[in-house]
Amino acid sequence: MYRPRAWIITIGNELLIGRTVNTNAATIARELTLRGVLVKRIVVVGDSIDEIATAVREALGSADIVVTTGGLGPTDDDMTMEAVAAAIDEPLVLNPEALEMVKKFYGEKGLPLTRERIKMAYLPRGAEPLPNPVGAAPGAYIIYSGSHIIMLPGVPAEMEAMLQEALKKLKPFLPRLCVVEEGITIRGVPESTLAPLLRRAAKSCSDCYVKSHPKGHEVREPVVEVKVLASAPNCETAKSRVRNMLGKLEALLNATHSPGKRGL
Amino acid sequence: MYRPRAWIITIGNELLIGRTVNTNAATIARELTLRGVLVKRIVVVGDSIDEIATAVREALGSADIVVTTGGLGPTDDDMTMEAVAAAIDEPLVLNPEALEMVKKFYGEKGLPLTRERIKMAYLPRGAEPLPNPVGAAPGAYIIYSGSHIIMLPGVPAEMEAMLQEALKKLKPFLPRLCVVEEGITIRGVPESTLAPLLRRAAKSCSDCYVKSHPKGHEVREPVVEVKVLASAPNCETAKSRVRNMLGKLEALLNATHSPGKRGL
Repeated sequence: MYRPRAWIITIGNELLIGRTVNTNAATIARELTLRGVLVKRIVVVGDSIDEIATAVREALGSADIVVTTGGLGPTDDDMTMEAVAAAIDEPLVLNPEALEMVKKFYGEKGLPLTRERIKMAYLPRGAEPLPNPVGAAPGAYIIYSGSHIIMLPGVPAEMEAMLQEALKKLKPFLPRLCVVEEGITIRGVPESTLAPLLRRAAKSCSDCYVKSHPKGHEVREPVVEVKVLASAPNCETAKSRVRNMLGKLEALLNATHSPGKRGL
Repeated sequence: MYRPRAWIITIGNELLIGRTVNTNAATIARELTLRGVLVKRIVVVGDSIDEIATAVREALGSADIVVTTGGLGPTDDDMTMEAVAAAIDEPLVLNPEALEMVKKFYGEKGLPLTRERIKMAYLPRGAEPLPNPVGAAPGAYIIYSGSHIIMLPGVPAEMEAMLQEALKKLKPFLPRLCVVEEGITIRGVPESTLAPLLRRAAKSCSDCYVKSHPKGHEVREPVVEVKVLASAPNCETAKSRVRNMLGKLEALLNATHSPGKRGL
C-alpha cells in the first residue's frame, strides 16, 4: 500500500535560538503518523523568505504533503505566505474569503482593518484559506504539482485547532491504514545485550518497526523501553502484529535473560 | 564580526512519529546562540544511513558547525557514525581510544566486550572520540573541509554532559561575542496594533533582533511578549543595546497606547 510522505517545516527564529521547544512538530508528526503518513523530515528555519522558500522547494521535491507552521501573523517577520508563494511561483494575492475572516474577527470587537490586519488575508494565488477558530490569522491549503501544502499558524492552540480541519481535506488522499504502537519496559538488561535479540525478533515481522530507547543507566540500572509500531488495513491486524512481536520479544528475553541469568 | 553558522541534525524515528518532543535541538540551539553562533537550520531525520548522510552533506554545504544527536548506541538502527563517514567519504574504523572508553565502561562492571559494545567504538577515520561521562557510547569530533562536525548521543542527560565538552573544542573558533536577550510583556494591545511600532523601533537598531510572540487572544485578552536580542563584543554593550531598544518600545507604546487610549 502506498503511504504518502510528508515534510514538516516549522518556522521561527525563536526555535533556532532555542527559546522555544518545538512541540508543534511533534503534534503534527503524531497526527500524520496515526493516519498512515510517513513523516520523512522535519525542518526548522528562521523568519526569512529565502530560508522558508528554500525549505518548501526542497520539501516539494520529495514529499506528497508539506505542513508549515508559523509566520502567518501581522508583523513584518511573518513571511510564510510570501515564501510559499515564491516557492510555487505564484503571486501573493488578497484572498476575498480570507479577508472576510479577518474582517469578521476584528469587526466583532469593533476594531478597524489596518494594513497589518489586511496583510493576514494575502495568500498564494490559488490557495484556499483555512478558518482559524482561535485567533486572527487564517491558514491556507493548496495543491501544487500533486503535493498538498498546508500552512498553519505557530501558536500551538491555533495550530492544533486548525490541523484537524486541514487533515479532513487530506482524508481522501490518505491510505486506509490503522497504525498501532505499544511498548514494554525491560529492567535489568543493558541495551547492548538486548540488541541482538531485538534484531532477531524484528527480522520475523517485515511490517513492524521495533526500536529500543535506553532510559536508565546502561549497566548500573538498565531500563530500556522497547516500542513496536505496526500498520495494517485494519486495527485488529495491526494490533495483533504488535502483540505478536512483543510476545516474541518476551519469549526471547525469558529464554536468554531469565532473572537468574541477568546481569550479562 | 564573522559569526559561524550552524546546522543541528537530530536523528531518530521517535522524533518523526511524534513520540518524542525534540528538546535536544532547543538545548543545543540555545548553547550555540549564547556563544555567538547563528543556528541556521535544525533538521530531523529518521534512522536511515541515506537520510542522515544526505542531511550531513547538505549541512556541510552551508554550515561551519554541524551538531548531530542520536544514533550512537549499540543497536542496528544506531547508524550516525556510519552515515557521517559516508557523508565525508571516510571509512568507519575501530578507534583505539574509543574502544578503551567502551572497554573501561563495561569492564568496571565486569561485563564482556560483545559485538554490539565494540560497534560503539567505530568512528569515521580521523575523528576524535568524545568521552561520555554518563553512558556507554562515545561521541566524536572531526573537522572536515573547514567545518566542525560534533556527534553527540540522543539521550538528553548524556548529550548535555558531552555538549559542554564539545563546545570547549570549538572555543578557539567562536567569536568573542556576548549575546543578551530580554523581553517585556505587553497586555491589552493586539499584536496587529503593535506591529507598526515594533517595525519603527527595530529600524533604529541594526544589531538588535526584535520579535513579538502572541500569548493570549489577539483581541479578547491580548498578551504579547516582545523579545529583544542583541550581541556585542562585550556584555555591557549588548545589554545596553537591549535596554535601549526596550526603552524605545515602551516610550512608543505609552505615546500611542496609554491606558486611556488602549483597545485600538
